[in-house]
Amino acid sequence: MSYGDDRVYKKVEIIGVSKKGLEAAIQAAVTKAHKSLEKLSWFEVQEIRGHVGEDGTVTEYQVVLKVAFQIKE
Amino acid sequence: MSYGDDRVYKKVEIIGVSKKGLEAAIQAAVTKAHKSLEKLSWFEVQEIRGHVGEDGTVTEYQVVLKVAFQIKE
Amino acid sequence: MSYGDDRVYKKVEIIGVSKKGLEAAIQAAVTKAHKSLEKLSWFEVQEIRGHVGEDGTVTEYQVVLKVAFQIKE
Amino acid sequence: MSYGDDRVYKKVEIIGVSKKGLEAAIQAAVTKAHKSLEKLSWFEVQEIRGHVGEDGTVTEYQVVLKVAFQIKE
Amino acid sequence: MSYGDDRVYKKVEIIGVSKKGLEAAIQAAVTKAHKSLEKLSWFEVQEIRGHVGEDGTVTEYQVVLKVAFQIKE
Amino acid sequence: MSYGDDRVYKKVEIIGVSKKGLEAAIQAAVTKAHKSLEKLSWFEVQEIRGHVGEDGTVTEYQVVLKVAFQIKE
Amino acid sequence: MSYGDDRVYKKVEIIGVSKKGLEAAIQAAVTKAHKSLEKLSWFEVQEIRGHVGEDGTVTEYQVVLKVAFQIKE
Amino acid sequence: MSYGDDRVYKKVEIIGVSKKGLEAAIQAAVTKAHKSLEKLSWFEVQEIRGHVGEDGTVTEYQVVLKVAFQIKE
Amino acid sequence: MSYGDDRVYKKVEIIGVSKKGLEAAIQAAVTKAHKSLEKLSWFEVQEIRGHVGEDGTVTEYQVVLKVAFQIKE
Amino acid sequence: MSYGDDRVYKKVEIIGVSKKGLEAAIQAAVTKAHKSLEKLSWFEVQEIRGHVGEDGTVTEYQVVLKVAFQIKE
Amino acid sequence: MSYGDDRVYKKVEIIGVSKKGLEAAIQAAVTKAHKSLEKLSWFEVQEIRGHVGEDGTVTEYQVVLKVAFQIKE
Amino acid sequence: MSYGDDRVYKKVEIIGVSKKGLEAAIQAAVTKAHKSLEKLSWFEVQEIRGHVGEDGTVTEYQVVLKVAFQIKE
Repeated sequence: MSYGDDRVYKKVEIIGVSKKGLEAAIQAAVTKAHKSLEKLSWFEVQEIRGHVGEDGTVTEYQVVLKVAFQIKE
Repeated sequence: MSYGDDRVYKKVEIIGVSKKGLEAAIQAAVTKAHKSLEKLSWFEVQEIRGHVGEDGTVTEYQVVLKVAFQIKE
Repeated sequence: MSYGDDRVYKKVEIIGVSKKGLEAAIQAAVTKAHKSLEKLSWFEVQEIRGHVGEDGTVTEYQVVLKVAFQIKE
Repeated sequence: MSYGDDRVYKKVEIIGVSKKGLEAAIQAAVTKAHKSLEKLSWFEVQEIRGHVGEDGTVTEYQVVLKVAFQIKE
Repeated sequence: MSYGDDRVYKKVEIIGVSKKGLEAAIQAAVTKAHKSLEKLSWFEVQEIRGHVGEDGTVTEYQVVLKVAFQIKE
Repeated sequence: MSYGDDRVYKKVEIIGVSKKGLEAAIQAAVTKAHKSLEKLSWFEVQEIRGHVGEDGTVTEYQVVLKVAFQIKE
Repeated sequence: MSYGDDRVYKKVEIIGVSKKGLEAAIQAAVTKAHKSLEKLSWFEVQEIRGHVGEDGTVTEYQVVLKVAFQIKE
Repeated sequence: MSYGDDRVYKKVEIIGVSKKGLEAAIQAAVTKAHKSLEKLSWFEVQEIRGHVGEDGTVTEYQVVLKVAFQIKE
Repeated sequence: MSYGDDRVYKKVEIIGVSKKGLEAAIQAAVTKAHKSLEKLSWFEVQEIRGHVGEDGTVTEYQVVLKVAFQIKE
Repeated sequence: MSYGDDRVYKKVEIIGVSKKGLEAAIQAAVTKAHKSLEKLSWFEVQEIRGHVGEDGTVTEYQVVLKVAFQIKE
Repeated sequence: MSYGDDRVYKKVEIIGVSKKGLEAAIQAAVTKAHKSLEKLSWFEVQEIRGHVGEDGTVTEYQVVLKVAFQIKE
Repeated sequence: MSYGDDRVYKKVEIIGVSKKGLEAAIQAAVTKAHKSLEKLSWFEVQEIRGHVGEDGTVTEYQVVLKVAFQIKE
């Protein structure tokens, strides 16, 4: 691919969940989408949320992302 | 599933249309997505619109939703 | 299809790229989605971006769209 | 009218109020606009609000809409 | 109270949940806030979401509202 | 009018301009709309802008408002 | 008119439709509003949408605009 | 307090109303919240609205603010 | 609690500050709110900001969150 | 300059601070930018914030603006 | 440059004006910024506006863009 | 500087890129801007994005920030 060629990308919205932190939640979502959809090119964070346990600890981070990949022939 | 486990969800945008009302339009979209995609977990309303007939009656409600489901292995 | 019938649409987010201009980028995305997904009904522009070459010329227009199509049985 | 013909629509912002519920508030606004403005084609909900009575009951729903109609010659 | 008098209101964000529909979820939240906070004056809907059961039925509507009440001396 | 009665309001977008300040620009717009449209009920500020003169003085404030009035029979 | 004079503008929301492209859709809306409303001063694009034909061609561009004009005495 | 120390703030949404102008409405809300909540640190304006009297005069300005204060031990 | 039961949640806006990083700032806010308010269920990040020291080092991360908890009888 | 000539403007984001009020904060920012950047053409208010003193008085208004000026040859 | 290397970009907001159309207005802004600032990498459209002449013709298109370039050592 | 003094700040938009994580990307942008512009006071995160490598690993985090500094005489 080079700039100036006609091409088309698709964006899909996914949510990665991890108890380890924000980067781990992002990587979890990217890894899964990369395997089940297509080779991804980039991601964009939409929302950051999380769950709080009984004792007031953040038990998981939930990162809503859009991931993008090129639609090939 | 329990909180704290790594997992990934996908969100898809759909539009339910019904002449009966807002809840019927939401349920129509959820039913179809539940059958053709995956078992859904939750939905989020994005937009509410509708069509008006010749006589000034609301002939249908159109509800734009995001529906979410877990991506399993 | 006529107004008042229950039905469901899906929206998908794609990016069309073309060096010729905005309409060409839109048409590129619509053509590809129409072939690989379903017969489209309409589109909505989300973002307009582009790439600039070494000499300061816009080398391509990138138009982010949502395209919509009816989910049939 | 058919797709592809040049034409122009106007959108007007109105608020329908009803104690019966959301659909009734939408229909109230659409009915009034349909009579006093023009034959409407569609509506888009902008905001949903309401008033609460002395006893904690929702005494009315207020739905802010945009309604659209074609400007004829 | 009459217009023109200096006064101050407070807005609080709450979420009403009901399986019966949107108006029931709104009323549930308003009733609770009216009892535990103050006599409410109005509400504004922020978000509409919901949960989907195993069989694809909407099992509950969740409406995020801001409710407002006057701060008295 | 009392809460609970079905009724319909219209909102119109206007811009008031004054060199005196923000309140004067709002009042200018409200006065004109009150005379040429209908008796207004309330206003909502959308945007605040202004023009700067040759010497770096703010020569006018421009306030974009929505004004609302009840549609009577 | 000169900067610093008190004056009031009105904004109206219209949608221009054309199969020729984005500028043609904008001009169609501006022409109609200029004739049926008042002499316009400027426009602001709100949304760009369009319709897709059976064969995957963009059959029309729909541009939602706000147009503004001065309210004269 | 100095930068770099761990600490927590809370934000609360209030509405100040005054017939005198925007700054008076802001000050009214800040004064009340400062007394009934906690010593405030800063405020952020969210919305500016107002009421119009029978004769077309702005009878009051309503400013929706978020006010913030540190949560102490 | 199980889905389908009527219940009400409240959301409160807080800001966690920490020099250690984003997750530490989130956890600081959640810990404080969990103690002084109620047992939290989840959080949503609204804004990420920070302070820069004299030498160009980020001396603290400030994360604005909404935290949510169920209102019990 | 006249409408229809090709030209380019730049927008810069600045914050004016004053204890006197909103117009004074705007003018402070405009004066400084007019001297240190270029002759400004217009401004657009982005945010209004402020600081609260120990005694609950608004000690300063902070107005975030975009200011615009033409880039000359 | 290759992905994975630490680097920093700057974004600047400019407005291109042209009577010829949207692409010409974008190119005008990009050309000027490319000469007076730095070699640009990409642009993002923020707003599309325009001026209307006495006879109802669009006399110029105004496109507000952000342009981005790498900050080199 | 102390609260209540008239002063002016400028905000500039930059993008920090780092393969190490979100805080590293923020610090990279802040360090560069602190050296090439002015002593910064604070930053605000606008967007979080990133690039994905051939093997599905996040190869870099891209954080879009606004950084602010006081304009001195």
